[in-house]
Amino acid sequence: MEKNNFEVIHNGTITTVPGVFAASCHCGIRKWKEDFTVIFIPGKTVCSGVFTKNKFAAAPVLVNRQTLEKNRNINAVIINSGTANACTGIEGIENAKKAIGIASKYLKVNPDNILISSTGRIGKHLPLDKIEKGLEICSRNLSSEGGHHAARAILTIDKHPKEFAVKINLKNKDILIGGIAKGSVMVEPDMATTLVFLATNAKISRSVLDILLFECIDKTFNCVSTDGCQSTNDMVIIIANGESNVDIFEDDKTIYEQFKSCLLFVLESLAKMIVEDGEGATKVVEINVIGARDGGEARQVGKRVANSILFKTAMYGEDLNWGRIASAAGSTESNIDSSKVDIFLADIPVMKDGMAVNYDEEQAGRLLKERYINFTINLNTGSGSARIFTNDISNEYIKINALYKKQR
Amino acid sequence: MEKNNFEVIHNGTITTVPGVFAASCHCGIRKWKEDFTVIFIPGKTVCSGVFTKNKFAAAPVLVNRQTLEKNRNINAVIINSGTANACTGIEGIENAKKAIGIASKYLKVNPDNILISSTGRIGKHLPLDKIEKGLEICSRNLSSEGGHHAARAILTIDKHPKEFAVKINLKNKDILIGGIAKGSVMVEPDMATTLVFLATNAKISRSVLDILLFECIDKTFNCVSTDGCQSTNDMVIIIANGESNVDIFEDDKTIYEQFKSCLLFVLESLAKMIVEDGEGATKVVEINVIGARDGGEARQVGKRVANSILFKTAMYGEDLNWGRIASAAGSTESNIDSSKVDIFLADIPVMKDGMAVNYDEEQAGRLLKERYINFTINLNTGSGSARIFTNDISNEYIKINALYKKQR
Repeated sequence: MEKNNFEVIHNGTITTVPGVFAASCHCGIRKWKEDFTVIFIPGKTVCSGVFTKNKFAAAPVLVNRQTLEKNRNINAVIINSGTANACTGIEGIENAKKAIGIASKYLKVNPDNILISSTGRIGKHLPLDKIEKGLEICSRNLSSEGGHHAARAILTIDKHPKEFAVKINLKNKDILIGGIAKGSVMVEPDMATTLVFLATNAKISRSVLDILLFECIDKTFNCVSTDGCQSTNDMVIIIANGESNVDIFEDDKTIYEQFKSCLLFVLESLAKMIVEDGEGATKVVEINVIGARDGGEARQVGKRVANSILFKTAMYGEDLNWGRIASAAGSTESNIDSSKVDIFLADIPVMKDGMAVNYDEEQAGRLLKERYINFTINLNTGSGSARIFTNDISNEYIKINALYKKQR
Repeated sequence: MEKNNFEVIHNGTITTVPGVFAASCHCGIRKWKEDFTVIFIPGKTVCSGVFTKNKFAAAPVLVNRQTLEKNRNINAVIINSGTANACTGIEGIENAKKAIGIASKYLKVNPDNILISSTGRIGKHLPLDKIEKGLEICSRNLSSEGGHHAARAILTIDKHPKEFAVKINLKNKDILIGGIAKGSVMVEPDMATTLVFLATNAKISRSVLDILLFECIDKTFNCVSTDGCQSTNDMVIIIANGESNVDIFEDDKTIYEQFKSCLLFVLESLAKMIVEDGEGATKVVEINVIGARDGGEARQVGKRVANSILFKTAMYGEDLNWGRIASAAGSTESNIDSSKVDIFLADIPVMKDGMAVNYDEEQAGRLLKERYINFTINLNTGSGSARIFTNDISNEYIKINALYKKQR
C-alpha cells in the first residue's frame, strides 16, 4: 500500500489521538491478569461499529447495536476479559445494560453514550460487582498515556499487544488515527475473538464514517483468516471526536481519499498483527487472488484456500504441495475454469493453465522456510482481486486448543 | 438404522456379489505398495456414478462422466494409486483414455464399457507402461475371491481396508450388495480422496439406480466430514449385473424400500469405516441436528460444526466446550434463532434455549473419554434433520500432513 504523505507514529496507540483517554486495571474477573479497560472520549463524537454476524451474537454486541441505532455520540467503551457474556440470554443483556449503568455513574456520561465489549469463556455471566470495582479504579486513572496499558489489558492469551497510529497533515492540521486490537485464533482458549477500537480527531459525519469503516474493514479484517472460526463477540468500533476541526466528506475527494488510505493502513496493520500473533503460528501467509470475475469471487477462493487445514499444515511443514491450493480453490461454488488457473509461489509459477509446471525446487524450498510466504492465484477470467492473510496450523495450535484442560 | 430382514455377510466384500471378479498387483507406480486393481463384471450391467464437484476434477473423473453419459453398461473399473492424474490437462485425459484402451485389449471389453479411477499425488502423469504391466498381471488373475485383495490395494496410507456386503432375500432370491472403499482424510499425504466401488446382482434400470445411489449417498457419504477438504478424484460407482433376475423398480414399493435400506446400510457402513480410519483420529463424533427448517439447513449446521477446527481440537482434548458448537452453528448463513437452540452431549443437556445450563461435569467427562461421542443440536424450528459423522484433529494429523516431507 502506498503511504501517500502520512506518517506512522512511533509507539502510537489509540490515546495518541488528541482528546482520547484510557485506563485499565485488574478487577478480579480473571485470576491474575488485568481484565478491565475504559476508553474515554469526551465531547461531541461520531461512532461507527461493525459487529459479528454470528447468530449467537453476545449480549454486548446486541446492546451496542441497539445503542448505535439511536445514537452515535459515544464517549466511552468499557471492555472486560474473562467472560464473553455470550449464550447468557436475557439476563446477559440485562447485565450488560447494568454494567453500562454503573459506568454512567462513575464516568458521568449518559448510558446512551457508552458501549460495552467482552471477551472470554462463553456461557459465563458478567460479575457486576467486579465491573463496578473496575470502573471505580479506571474512572480515577484515565489518561492520554493509557492506550499502551489498554492494548495489553484487552489481551487474553495473545502474546503481543497490538496498537498502531498514523498522522496525516490535511488542510494544515494534523489528523490522527490510532487503534488497539486483540485476538484472534485462540482466546481464553475458548473462542476466536477479534476486538478493535479506533479513534480519530477528524470531523466526520456518521454516514461517511460508516461507509469508510465498512469499506476498509472489508479489505482488511474481513480478509484475515486464522482458523476460519467466527466469534460471538467480534466488534470493530471507531470514534471520531472532530478535535482537529478538519472535515472529511465525500465531495472533497483528495482529503477523503487521503484519510481513507490512512484508515486502511491502520486497519491493515492491526489485522496483520493479529495474524502474526496467531496462536502457535510459525508462518504468515499472504494469498493474492487476481483475475477473478469480481472481488467477491476472489475473496471466496482466497478464503477457501486460507481455511483449508491441508494447506495450513503444508505451510507448517514447509511443503509446497500446490495441489492442495488447487483443490481448495476448486471446491468453492464459484464457476472457475480450471484450465485457466495459474498458481505462483512469490513469482515462481508452480501451476500454469491448471497443470503442473517444472520449477526450481531448491528456490521454492528456500522461500517456504521464510516466516512470510506469498502466493498468487490467477483465475485469468476477469479483473477482480482480493488479498487474504492467514497463518499455518502447528502442533502448538493443537496443544493450546485441545490439551488446555489436560495440561492445567 | 433398522436392519429389516437383511443379513450382514461375515467378511463380505465386492466380489461376494455373484458375477463380480477382481485382481490387484504391484505395477510399479508406487515404490513398495500394491498400486493397481481391476474390478471385472462381465455381461449386461447398469452402472451409476457420483463424482467430485471440484472444479479441478481429475482426468479419470472427466473421462468417466463422458463414458456414463453415452453408456451405462460397465464391465470393468481399473484403479491405480500413486498418481491422481489431476491438474494434468489434455494430456492427462488422453492418458486416461489410453489406459482404458490398454484395458480393453487385455480384458477383451469395449473401451466404452470401462471406467478408470486414480488416487495419489496431484500433477503427476499416468505412467502407461506401468498400467499395461498391471493389466497384463491382473487380467490373468481375476477371481471371485479378489475383493479382499482389492480392498487393500486401493488404499494408500489408510490403516485398514474398508469392505462390506449384505444379503437380502427378495422374491425367494438372494440379493447381494457388496462394496469396497478407500480414504479419506490424508491420502498420499496429498489429498483427501474417497473412492467407493459397489456391486449388486439386483436387476435394475439406470434411472432407478441413479435415484437410489444419489439418495443414499446424500444421506451417507455426503454426511461424512473428516477435514472439510474436497478431493479432485472422489467417486462412488455402483454396478448392477442383474444376475439374480430380481427386478428393483419403484412401483413395487416393498421390494424397492427393502433394497434401498440395504444399499443405505452398506454405504453408511463404508462411510463410517472411513471416519473410523481418519488419519490421526482418536474420536468418532456423531452430530445429530434436529428441529431444522429442512434437511439442508440441518446438514449445513452439522457440517459447520464438524469442520470447525476449534470443535475438533476440543474433542481431541476431551473438553466439552459447547460454546464452540454454538458459535460454529451460529456462523452459518441459515437464519437460526439462537434463543431456541438446545445442545445435548448424548442425552445430557449442556445448552438450553441458547443459554448455559448446569450439568454433571463428571458424567460429561466420562462420555468425552469414550472413542464414540454423540451430540444432538436441536434448532427447535422445524422437522428437518441430518446426521453428520466426523473425527477429531490430533497432533498425529498435523504430523502426518505437515511433517511428511521433513520426516522422510
